[in-house]
Amino acid sequence: MKRVPTVGVFDSGVGGLTVLKALLTQASAADYLYLGDTARLPYGSKSQATVARYAVSSAHFLVEQGAEALVIACNTASALALDALRAAVEVPVIGVIETGATAALHNSQTKDVLVIATAATVESHAYSAGCRERGLRAIEKACPLLVPLVEEGWIDHPVTREVTGIYLADLLSHAADAGMKADTLVLGCTHYPLLRSVIEDALRKHPTGQAVRVIDSAQVTAEQVASRLALAPDGKREPAVRFYATDSVVKFRALGTRFLGRAIDGVELIDLGG
Amino acid sequence: MKRVPTVGVFDSGVGGLTVLKALLTQASAADYLYLGDTARLPYGSKSQATVARYAVSSAHFLVEQGAEALVIACNTASALALDALRAAVEVPVIGVIETGATAALHNSQTKDVLVIATAATVESHAYSAGCRERGLRAIEKACPLLVPLVEEGWIDHPVTREVTGIYLADLLSHAADAGMKADTLVLGCTHYPLLRSVIEDALRKHPTGQAVRVIDSAQVTAEQVASRLALAPDGKREPAVRFYATDSVVKFRALGTRFLGRAIDGVELIDLGG
Repeated sequence: MKRVPTVGVFDSGVGGLTVLKALLTQASAADYLYLGDTARLPYGSKSQATVARYAVSSAHFLVEQGAEALVIACNTASALALDALRAAVEVPVIGVIETGATAALHNSQTKDVLVIATAATVESHAYSAGCRERGLRAIEKACPLLVPLVEEGWIDHPVTREVTGIYLADLLSHAADAGMKADTLVLGCTHYPLLRSVIEDALRKHPTGQAVRVIDSAQVTAEQVASRLALAPDGKREPAVRFYATDSVVKFRALGTRFLGRAIDGVELIDLGG
Repeated sequence: MKRVPTVGVFDSGVGGLTVLKALLTQASAADYLYLGDTARLPYGSKSQATVARYAVSSAHFLVEQGAEALVIACNTASALALDALRAAVEVPVIGVIETGATAALHNSQTKDVLVIATAATVESHAYSAGCRERGLRAIEKACPLLVPLVEEGWIDHPVTREVTGIYLADLLSHAADAGMKADTLVLGCTHYPLLRSVIEDALRKHPTGQAVRVIDSAQVTAEQVASRLALAPDGKREPAVRFYATDSVVKFRALGTRFLGRAIDGVELIDLGG
């Protein structure tokens, strides 16, 4: 039997489980370690220096546990800490901003792209930079209430529809003011795929949003991991997964199940300091 | 000139500045150190062990800087870490849960009290225990969206009114089911005083909420600090204040101004590990 590689997947919390979920089906010829740095989340409201410090200590841990490649499933860490991570570890590091920008390039006809993300990701303008490198124009919008709404469990809820509508109307109006004809919206945070249908409804109801297609970077990241690590497709294989969290494993299991779409067993509590 | 004591005020972030604001006027015969553990916030969604670890390292720092008494302005840390803090430092430690429960006792005629707070504070049932010790019945409700709404700056906003209305209707209906005649609502989180008028409006609009009076624990805590530390009233004195934060001082200043109600100068960035 051919030995498969071990891939470390890292996020500030449970949101990255949407990326792991895609990896387990799209890149099943690997085993996985998943680390949620739940004691120090969220990263989305914190500074570059702090996020980089947290991400590097998390990456070191995963490499020590045997990870031969790292997937940075956290958009904020990908935006703020990718260079620091690549300098800190020897293994390949794949971030969700790059994969999201590449997916936008494949999807967009007009070359005008919208991005919604956390405050820290937006302030870093990492998506704009990644899009610009690929010949796309991007406009970004911070949506800091969407993560708390998902974590409150208000997925299909009138308040969430209202908040999403306010954020997207603001984004679309800025895009129109800039003369953009956007046809693609990148979900730049791992929590947002849970709100996909709410977001799509809000786009449909807006006069300039109807033509916009939503891109879930989890899906695209999984495809690109399979390709970059040259994983042979093996739909039947069930990857082994080990889970680590820096705060309560009970909470990790309870909240994580919603993101992974299946029960989570055997989470190990680890201490990265702090 | 009489030497005044130095009091350390601790919070996970900027919310405790509402307590500091009250201290600066109600307990002005002291100087203050304020520490916001912004690199590790929020505490409200984290476990007891993690919150205690963070709070103790923060308390050690303040005592090393010369604090002769500590005010734990963070409800979550007061709920989950007060015993750990008192074991860890030699100086008096005053928590906002105790002061809030005492204030409820002074205010309530019916002896039935409502509390709104973060998830971690509610799960600890520290307010219920503190109220029970004082002969009060309390019912608690976690309101995890209120902090993000305040931090988004949506103070007087229709979404905030709707969310507040949903939370309070749920709380009042549970209280009615339990046969309670509540006349007092304790704001069990330092962010909530900024929503005081929104909360009071929501109470007034509810059939069983009209008689409920809102208690802001910041105010009450300041009075009790002055009394416990035997600070002579001195309305003219302007206390010296030093600010410390564990994440970006720029963000601390920007967000903190809203809570303190005045400009914040000279915040020092410190590293507590993590």
